[in-house]
Amino acid sequence: MKLVIIGGVAAGASIAARARRLDEFAEIIVLERGHHVSFANCGLPYHIGGVITDRSRLLVQTPESLRDALDLDVRIGQEVVSIDRAAKTVTVRRVDDGTEYTESYDALALTPGAEAIRPPIPGIELPGVHVLRRMGDMDQIKARLDALLTEAAAGRRGPVRAVVIGAGYIGLEMAENLRHRGAEVDVVELADQILPPLDHELSVPVEAHLRSRGVAVHLETGAAALREAASGLDVELTNHTVLHADLVILSAGVRPNTDLARAAGLELGPHGGIAVDTHMRTSDPHIWAAGDSVETPGTVLPGTALAPLAGPANRQARVAAENICGRDTEYRSTQGTSIVKVFDMVAGGTGATQRQLRTAGIAHRAVHVHPSGHAGYYPGTAMMHLKVVFDPETGRLLGSQVAGFDGVDKRLDVLATAVRMGMTVFDLEELELAYAPPFGSAKDPINMAGFVASNVVRGDLDLWYAEDYPAAVEGARVIDVRTPEEFSIWHLPGAENVPLDTLRAVCGDWDTSTPIRLYCAVGFRSYLAYRALRQRGFTDLKTLSGGSTTFRSWHE
Amino acid sequence: MKLVIIGGVAAGASIAARARRLDEFAEIIVLERGHHVSFANCGLPYHIGGVITDRSRLLVQTPESLRDALDLDVRIGQEVVSIDRAAKTVTVRRVDDGTEYTESYDALALTPGAEAIRPPIPGIELPGVHVLRRMGDMDQIKARLDALLTEAAAGRRGPVRAVVIGAGYIGLEMAENLRHRGAEVDVVELADQILPPLDHELSVPVEAHLRSRGVAVHLETGAAALREAASGLDVELTNHTVLHADLVILSAGVRPNTDLARAAGLELGPHGGIAVDTHMRTSDPHIWAAGDSVETPGTVLPGTALAPLAGPANRQARVAAENICGRDTEYRSTQGTSIVKVFDMVAGGTGATQRQLRTAGIAHRAVHVHPSGHAGYYPGTAMMHLKVVFDPETGRLLGSQVAGFDGVDKRLDVLATAVRMGMTVFDLEELELAYAPPFGSAKDPINMAGFVASNVVRGDLDLWYAEDYPAAVEGARVIDVRTPEEFSIWHLPGAENVPLDTLRAVCGDWDTSTPIRLYCAVGFRSYLAYRALRQRGFTDLKTLSGGSTTFRSWHE
Ligand SMILES: Cc1cc2nc3c(=O)[nH]c(=O)nc-3n(C[C@H](O)[C@H](O)[C@H](O)COP(=O)(O)OP(=O)(O)OC[C@H]3O[C@@H](n4cnc5c(N)ncnc54)[C@H](O)[C@@H]3O)c2cc1C
Ligand SMILES: Cc1cc2nc3c(=O)[nH]c(=O)nc-3n(C[C@H](O)[C@H](O)[C@H](O)COP(=O)(O)OP(=O)(O)OC[C@H]3O[C@@H](n4cnc5c(N)ncnc54)[C@H](O)[C@@H]3O)c2cc1C
Ligand SMILES: CC(C)(COP(=O)(O)OP(=O)(O)OC[C@H]1O[C@@H](n2cnc3c(N)ncnc32)[C@H](O)[C@@H]1OP(=O)(O)O)[C@@H](O)C(=O)NCCC(=O)NCCS
Ligand SMILES: CC(C)(COP(=O)(O)OP(=O)(O)OC[C@H]1O[C@@H](n2cnc3c(N)ncnc32)[C@H](O)[C@@H]1OP(=O)(O)O)[C@@H](O)C(=O)NCCC(=O)NCCS
Repeated sequence: MKLVIIGGVAAGASIAARARRLDEFAEIIVLERGHHVSFANCGLPYHIGGVITDRSRLLVQTPESLRDALDLDVRIGQEVVSIDRAAKTVTVRRVDDGTEYTESYDALALTPGAEAIRPPIPGIELPGVHVLRRMGDMDQIKARLDALLTEAAAGRRGPVRAVVIGAGYIGLEMAENLRHRGAEVDVVELADQILPPLDHELSVPVEAHLRSRGVAVHLETGAAALREAASGLDVELTNHTVLHADLVILSAGVRPNTDLARAAGLELGPHGGIAVDTHMRTSDPHIWAAGDSVETPGTVLPGTALAPLAGPANRQARVAAENICGRDTEYRSTQGTSIVKVFDMVAGGTGATQRQLRTAGIAHRAVHVHPSGHAGYYPGTAMMHLKVVFDPETGRLLGSQVAGFDGVDKRLDVLATAVRMGMTVFDLEELELAYAPPFGSAKDPINMAGFVASNVVRGDLDLWYAEDYPAAVEGARVIDVRTPEEFSIWHLPGAENVPLDTLRAVCGDWDTSTPIRLYCAVGFRSYLAYRALRQRGFTDLKTLSGGSTTFRSWHE
Repeated sequence: MKLVIIGGVAAGASIAARARRLDEFAEIIVLERGHHVSFANCGLPYHIGGVITDRSRLLVQTPESLRDALDLDVRIGQEVVSIDRAAKTVTVRRVDDGTEYTESYDALALTPGAEAIRPPIPGIELPGVHVLRRMGDMDQIKARLDALLTEAAAGRRGPVRAVVIGAGYIGLEMAENLRHRGAEVDVVELADQILPPLDHELSVPVEAHLRSRGVAVHLETGAAALREAASGLDVELTNHTVLHADLVILSAGVRPNTDLARAAGLELGPHGGIAVDTHMRTSDPHIWAAGDSVETPGTVLPGTALAPLAGPANRQARVAAENICGRDTEYRSTQGTSIVKVFDMVAGGTGATQRQLRTAGIAHRAVHVHPSGHAGYYPGTAMMHLKVVFDPETGRLLGSQVAGFDGVDKRLDVLATAVRMGMTVFDLEELELAYAPPFGSAKDPINMAGFVASNVVRGDLDLWYAEDYPAAVEGARVIDVRTPEEFSIWHLPGAENVPLDTLRAVCGDWDTSTPIRLYCAVGFRSYLAYRALRQRGFTDLKTLSGGSTTFRSWHE
């Protein structure tokens, strides 16, 4: 068997490695047009930031190490320029000298990854505008930044200014790392929030943290034009502000590399990625594909989607290799679990967002809880924002998002497992997670989210939502059950303050048919108030999901 | 409905709180013989250690706060001395003045917790011997430690010496916290390992870390006798060594408080805890029980077990409250998920250990992997020891244990979820966990464990185990596929060094029927060697699970 693989990083190298383990005698050729295989794309921002000091650590494997350990024929600087499906050959161009040769295959694997999107803005091709995909991109950015910082340190210039276009995961990682090096950073984002893959209210605490670390954030703002200036570039925004930048990082998303596939007549999916079946096989039975260039079925959402993430790329590759080697393995779905560190905060999500569910017309409910990462009395913890979205009938989990400081990645992974396994919010109630004060609480945040969501599904609790304000409180008494001190600092306009510990005594003569909308700081006290009133016959009663904490993320 | 609850901490207060939310008009009385309810037992060691500085943070709720928020009648210093099941009353003794009164109930909840075991050693009742269960125990230990340290600081005495008897979770937490304060600490443990709830090889790296932090560890050693000495105590060990101690902490396990239950004729379980059904109901239909005093079915192991853990106590309580209030909720099982921080290390487990499975005669296989907590190129990570035990036929997870530095609690929680949901090692292969360099790897440790275990179940990999050495290598060629440098530093006696990258070239003339036992540092390279040899016709081939890393935990 002769296997040719186009692309030699996450998906490509993984296919090659797994194929070798399954078939010791296959001829396996990896063709990579760049100068590195098996490098850690995800680490690139951190080498620029000086966090990963040793550049060579980013090279997970080399052509030599892959040959020695796995007997692979890995060829760098060799670009596949066309595929002849009928002849089962590819044409390869040596990047250095432009010469070409033909390589035949029995099985072909396409793992060409994705390219940075360059929106059609005047000046986008100027040399000071950088994308970050490869080692070379990183080297360029780092060299430029190092030079600028050296000049600044020597007093030969003012502070280094960077503009990051796009506030997705890579944009924020770059913002952090540039700031870490001492640059002044502006982040420009077209959407009305940072981290567009998260629901709005989860992005707000992260945005506040980003600002608190001195990063300027411009929302609902795009780059309109880029112009060369005396030193560096002028970035004109859609709101006509002009930002001066010594360095512009373009992180406005990626697009699958499908030129080869398209030219070879392979089917593409509705989102422009290479179409594959659950065996990672393309429309040609001799060609497989994996990684950023393909679209795969959603775990929660119907249809297929692009998900340019390293975990899925690696696992798709493993599945592709198994099928190439004659096994029958399925890659069932991608749920889009993702995470980002933003200075001291961490945020991420798994499964569907509420925005996506709404667009897809899928019935759902959400709950918001704000537990601490571990026992509050043990130092080093902070409140997290945890949102769980579920089927209102069955309680099946549809998605979850978490933002906070400590223990965010852990809760996200448990919830990712839950979404993957089709677990319900009732299952979350029962989970027996590891508890000692430095790690969690006897009722873990995951249990807590399960309790609250289960209460909703069982009809023990009815919620109103900050994003439906003010409509959600129209015609209702709005009752704030926090303490007078808390009330005096901030409260909803028109709210009455009835502290929880006085509620039972004073509610005796209230009209039980008047709609009442309760709230407190996070939802716990208003839940207690809800239960007390509900059992006293109040019929039109709801409490604010996530309390004023979530409310203020929506409205401030 | 009148609900009386005996005990007012984790389980008791939780029953009361949940019952109130389900039944606003029930009369709910909590009777607690101690002076505090709702306190954080689990935080006690850390206040002694000065990590939790504010003592009041340990009092999660007070009788007043529970009255104000939940309309509960919480009575401290009131001990229930007997239960009259026929009359449905309890007799209550006021601890302060010894007076008694009777309280009737419709429903009674027993949550009396557990007591420290005091082994019958001469001198065990001496005043310098402390257990740690309650606020008062903590206050005593802390006062004594503070006084000793003040004297030492003033040069009026030498270093403070403490002996901790029992190297379970609480013993190790105390060792750490005492050391943190500057005491010299000896830990004495009867078993041949610290952390008896873990399998041996997982305990060894933690033991090494404990020693590296200056804690002396005495294994297979008990306290034989305690005697008053000039200042403090002399602790004579079973090996006749005498340790001088200013402070002795006895943490030799706990025993369920069942005096009341036994006297009332309630059924006990085979392990001496109160017997309950899955509704947390005792043998008396009007009496429920929860927490450290009960035994519950195992998630993996047959039969019931004691599991004195805060998470189960809290959730059992919630289930009990629901059933008391007329709902029909089941507490299905306890899997014993537990975790401990030991200085910079973290260790824990979930489900069954291999030792337990062996005792129970349940067929199982184990794999050991040693991935890093997050991407190796991103700073701040270290190798973890991850063991997964599973059914050799179906791949169903039976248990898992993890020890390491960063990211241990996260992997444990995902595995706890997996054990709870009856997931298989094949499910672990597919999990889509959150990946960015500070948090994990594109193939998470959990996926890695899933890959290796699935390879075993699918027959792609056959393992030999360090604990079966030397029997496991008898009559076999032992081949070390690491580099000559690694080999020169340490290798198995009689091993041949055939570095992986030379293996394919040299194995051509080997006899394929000679048994071969491979190993490397963690199992990855020997797996590659295994695949290369297997496909060359070698028939009696095994590779060492966890490599020399696991081997050295067993044999050094
Ligand atoms: C800066 C950055 C940070 C990231 N951070 C994260 C993160 O934290 N978490 C996460 O999950 N994901 C992250 N990702 C995404 C992750 O790196 C990708 O999902 C993953 O690398 C995709 O693997 P792939 O093999 O499909 O594509 P790639 O890794 O991009 O590899 C494709 C390779 O194919 C080569 N190629 C393309 N066409 C040809 C051709 N015609 N001939 C020969 N070779 C060709 C390319 O040169 C390229 O090297 C990050 C990406 C970047 C750039
Ligand atoms: C130092 C320490 C550290 C711990 N660390 C952890 C950890 O990190 N993780 C973990 O999961 N678990 C930990 N635990 C265990 C955890 O605290 C218990 O599992 C949990 O508290 C059990 O709850 P319970 O309500 O059953 O018993 P308890 O919390 O012990 O409460 C029982 C109460 O009942 C009262 N009582 C008993 N008899 C009577 C009577 N006749 N009349 C009136 N009152 C009575 C007692 O005074 C006591 O206050 C730790 C325990 C200790 C002591
Ligand atoms: C490294 C790379 C070449 C893949 O190589 P690989 O040989 O599959 O190596 P991994 O380290 O992923 O190890 C996984 C394999 O080792 C096995 N393994 C791991 N630890 C083991 C152990 N202790 N014992 C036995 N086997 C073990 C696993 O079972 C798996 O083998 P399988 O797939 O045949 O079941 C590829 O993932 C790559 O190029 N990565 C860098 C690029 C990248 O991922 N970028 C994006 C993220 S930054
Ligand atoms: C605190 C204690 C009294 C229990 O009180 P509780 O009122 O159940 O409070 P918790 O903080 O556990 O909150 C859980 C409840 O709040 C609800 N809740 C939590 N956050 C919420 C939110 N944001 N919105 C709505 N409801 C919320 C949950 O649904 C749950 O209610 P339910 O059981 O009716 O579904 C009891 O656990 C205790 O005494 N703990 C200290 C002792 C201890 O546990 N020791 C061992 C560990 S150190």
